[in-house]
Amino acid sequence: MKPIRVGLLGCGTVGGGVLRLLRESSEYVAQSIGAPLEVARVLVRDTGKERVVALDRGLLTTDPEALLGDATIDVFVEVMGGVDPTRAYVERAIDTKRSVVTANKMLLAKHGPALVDRAIANGVDLGFEGSVGGGIPVVRVLRDALACDWVVRLEGIVNGTCNYVLTRMHDDGLAFDDAVREAQEKGYAEADPSLDVDGHDAAHKLVVLAMLAFGARVDAERVPTEGIRGIDPIDHRFAERFGFAIKHMAIGRERGDGIELRVHPALVHRDTPLANVGGVLNAIALEGRALGPCLLSGRGAGDMPTAVSVVADVLDVARARLSGFAGLATRSIQTKTRPLASIDEVRTRYYLRFQAHDRPGVLARLAGALGDAGVSIEQMVQEGGGGSSGVPVHIVMLTHEALERDVRSALDTIAHSGVAASSPRLIRIL
Amino acid sequence: MKPIRVGLLGCGTVGGGVLRLLRESSEYVAQSIGAPLEVARVLVRDTGKERVVALDRGLLTTDPEALLGDATIDVFVEVMGGVDPTRAYVERAIDTKRSVVTANKMLLAKHGPALVDRAIANGVDLGFEGSVGGGIPVVRVLRDALACDWVVRLEGIVNGTCNYVLTRMHDDGLAFDDAVREAQEKGYAEADPSLDVDGHDAAHKLVVLAMLAFGARVDAERVPTEGIRGIDPIDHRFAERFGFAIKHMAIGRERGDGIELRVHPALVHRDTPLANVGGVLNAIALEGRALGPCLLSGRGAGDMPTAVSVVADVLDVARARLSGFAGLATRSIQTKTRPLASIDEVRTRYYLRFQAHDRPGVLARLAGALGDAGVSIEQMVQEGGGGSSGVPVHIVMLTHEALERDVRSALDTIAHSGVAASSPRLIRIL
Repeated sequence: MKPIRVGLLGCGTVGGGVLRLLRESSEYVAQSIGAPLEVARVLVRDTGKERVVALDRGLLTTDPEALLGDATIDVFVEVMGGVDPTRAYVERAIDTKRSVVTANKMLLAKHGPALVDRAIANGVDLGFEGSVGGGIPVVRVLRDALACDWVVRLEGIVNGTCNYVLTRMHDDGLAFDDAVREAQEKGYAEADPSLDVDGHDAAHKLVVLAMLAFGARVDAERVPTEGIRGIDPIDHRFAERFGFAIKHMAIGRERGDGIELRVHPALVHRDTPLANVGGVLNAIALEGRALGPCLLSGRGAGDMPTAVSVVADVLDVARARLSGFAGLATRSIQTKTRPLASIDEVRTRYYLRFQAHDRPGVLARLAGALGDAGVSIEQMVQEGGGGSSGVPVHIVMLTHEALERDVRSALDTIAHSGVAASSPRLIRIL
Repeated sequence: MKPIRVGLLGCGTVGGGVLRLLRESSEYVAQSIGAPLEVARVLVRDTGKERVVALDRGLLTTDPEALLGDATIDVFVEVMGGVDPTRAYVERAIDTKRSVVTANKMLLAKHGPALVDRAIANGVDLGFEGSVGGGIPVVRVLRDALACDWVVRLEGIVNGTCNYVLTRMHDDGLAFDDAVREAQEKGYAEADPSLDVDGHDAAHKLVVLAMLAFGARVDAERVPTEGIRGIDPIDHRFAERFGFAIKHMAIGRERGDGIELRVHPALVHRDTPLANVGGVLNAIALEGRALGPCLLSGRGAGDMPTAVSVVADVLDVARARLSGFAGLATRSIQTKTRPLASIDEVRTRYYLRFQAHDRPGVLARLAGALGDAGVSIEQMVQEGGGGSSGVPVHIVMLTHEALERDVRSALDTIAHSGVAASSPRLIRIL
C-alpha cells in the first residue's frame, strides 16, 4: 500500500523521540494502520546541528515551504513550539487538507478551539494528546472514552516543575529558591522559571482540558491563576500536621450555568491518590456524571513520554486519512463560549495562616472577623513565639466550606485592624 | 445520513445504562460520528420483566435469530454475560461482518485472542473497553495511547470486591467473613463470593490486559492465583506498622524471553498511589519502556461506569463502520503464545509471619533456615505472647529481594523443624 508521508515541523527532543519511536515500530505501525509511515521532510532551524537521533540529513530543510508546499505530505507533526510562526504553519497545513498532530500547549491554549473548528471545516484531524500531561493519555480519555458522559469536575497536577519544587520543599525542607535552583540543575525548570512557578503553564493546560471536558472556549488570561512563590516551608509543616500535602492544582468545575476554572496551590488530603503524586509526575482526577471518579497519572513531560503520545496521535490520524474519513475524531470536540465564574464565587475550605503578636484577645479578634463574615472555623493551631519573646506566633485555621468573597472580606477586616503582624497566607483546600 | 443500527444482546443493569446514555446523548452522537445511532432490537430472557430504563417494548425479543438474522443491524452490543451461548452469538455476528462491543471479561479471558483474530479476518471490530476496569479506559490506553510503546510491567487492583473487603478489614478491623457479608449486603459481592475473593475474576482480567500489554495469548487457568481468604486482621496491623497497605493485585511483567503473570495479595507501600486506592475503586499501574509510569484509577464496576466504556466503544466502532474501514483499531491487537514464568521464578520481597512459641533459639532457627536458602532479612518484629504465657508470639520478617523458590524451600525446612506453631503466612511485597 502507498505509504503515509509525514512532515515533521521541528526536531528538538520531542521530535527526536518521535523519529526514534516511528523507526523502532515501523513494522508494527504498517500492520496496525494498514500502510507504512514515511518521514518525508523535517523542518529545522539549523541543518548542520548535531541530532540526538540518526537521521538522513537529506530530509532536513530550513524552508517551511519545502514541507507545506509539498502536496505529497499527508500528515504534519508540529513539535517546534511557540505560537508564531507555528500557528500560520498549522493553519496552512489544515487549509490544504492535511491533518496535524501537535504537542504545543501554548498554541492550543491560545487558538485551540479555532484550530479545531478549522480542522473540522476542512475535514481533517487535529491531534494534540502530547500538549497536556505529556505521556498521560488524558486528551484521548476526555475525547473518546468519556464521549457520552459529562465531566462535572477536573483536578490536575499538570506542571511538573511546581510539583518537583513542592515535593522537595516538603520532603527535605528546602526553601523555595533552593528547590527551584535544583530543578533548574536537573533540567526540570527553565532558566526563567516564571512560566511554570507562577502558574501560567498550568493555566494553558487547564484551558486545553476545559475545551475537552466542558466544551468551553476560554481565554487563558481570564483564568484566576496563582503560582507557588508564596508557599513557605512552614506551610508544608502545618499542612502535614493537619494531614494534607500542598500541591499546585489546575481545577475545573461544571456549574451548570457556567464553569469555574482556577489554578493555585491547594491542600490535598494525604489519604487521596493526588497527594501521593510526587516529583515531576503529573496527575489528572476527573469526575464523570455517569463514570464517577477517574484518575490518570504519569510523566507530564520529557521527550519519550510526549513522543509516545504524539505517535499515538499520528497513528490515529493516519488511519483516519487512509479510511478517507479524516476529521471524525476531531468533530467530536464541540466548543462554545461559556461564562466563567469569578474567584469570588468559589466555595471551598481554606487554610489561613496568620502571624500575630501573642497578646490577649488576638485569637478572639481573628475568629470574630471570620465569624462576622459567615466563615466558620473547623480546626485551629497556634505555634511558636510566646508572650514575652516578642516574636510573632503562627496561628493556622482551617475553615469549613465558605465563599471566597466572605473569606476575603474577613481578611480585609483583619488587615485593617492591625491584629496580624503581616499579610495572612490563604491556601484553598481541595 | 442512514442511521447505524445497534442490536443489544442482554438488557440487565449495564444494558440499561447503555440505553440511557445513548438516549441522553443522541444529538451529540449523531454529530460526533456523522450519523444517528438507532437501537434496532434488544434480546432479553423475559419480555415481560420490569426494566430500569423506559424502552419501546416492541424492540424486545427472546429470539436471538431476530437480531443475528437481521442483516440491517450494523453493530452488536453484548452485555448478556457468560460464555455459553454468548460466544456463539458473538462469533455469528462477526462472521456476518458486524462489529461487536462486549463487556464480558470471562468470554474475553477464555476466547479473547481467537475472537480478535476472527474480527480481523472478517474486517470488523471487537471493542471490549467495558470488560476490564469498568469505567477505567485501560483497554483504549493500552491499544491506542501506547500503540508504539512496549509495556514492561503492569500492576492492577482489578477486583472491587477484594479491594472493598481489604479496605474494611484495614480501616475498621473487620474480620474477613464480616467484611464479605457487608460487601454482599451492599451489592459489591455475589451470594457466592468465590469468583472474586479467590482471585479468579482478577485472573480473567489480567489475561485480557496481558493480551493488550504483552501481546500474549494466555490460559487463565495457568496464571498463579491466590485470593484474600488467608489474610488476617493482624496482617493489616503488621503491614501498617511497616508502612504498607495490603491490596489484592494482578501483576504482569515483560521478561524478554517470556512473561510473568500472577494474582495475589501484596504489601503496597503507603507512599504510592496504589496504596490509597480504597473501597470498590480499581486502579492499574503501567510502565511503558518509553512512556515511563502511568496510573489509571476509577470505578471498576457498576452499571453506569461500564456503560460509559461500552458506549465509547460503540461510537468508535460505528465511526469505523461508517468510514468503510472497520477492523483497523482491532488489527492493532496482535497476539501470540508466550512462555509464562512459573511462580518459582518470581523474584520479589516477602512479608513472612510466623507463629512460634517464645523459646530460646526460635528466632535463630527461623533466621538460619532463611539464611541457608539465601534469603536475607531486612526488618523483623516480634509481638504478643511472652515466655511464661504459653501463647505463641507473632514473628514478622520482611525479606530483601529473593527468589520465590528459595523462600519456599526455607519455609519447608521451617515447617519440618517444628519450630513454628502453625503454617507461616507469606505475602509478596510490591
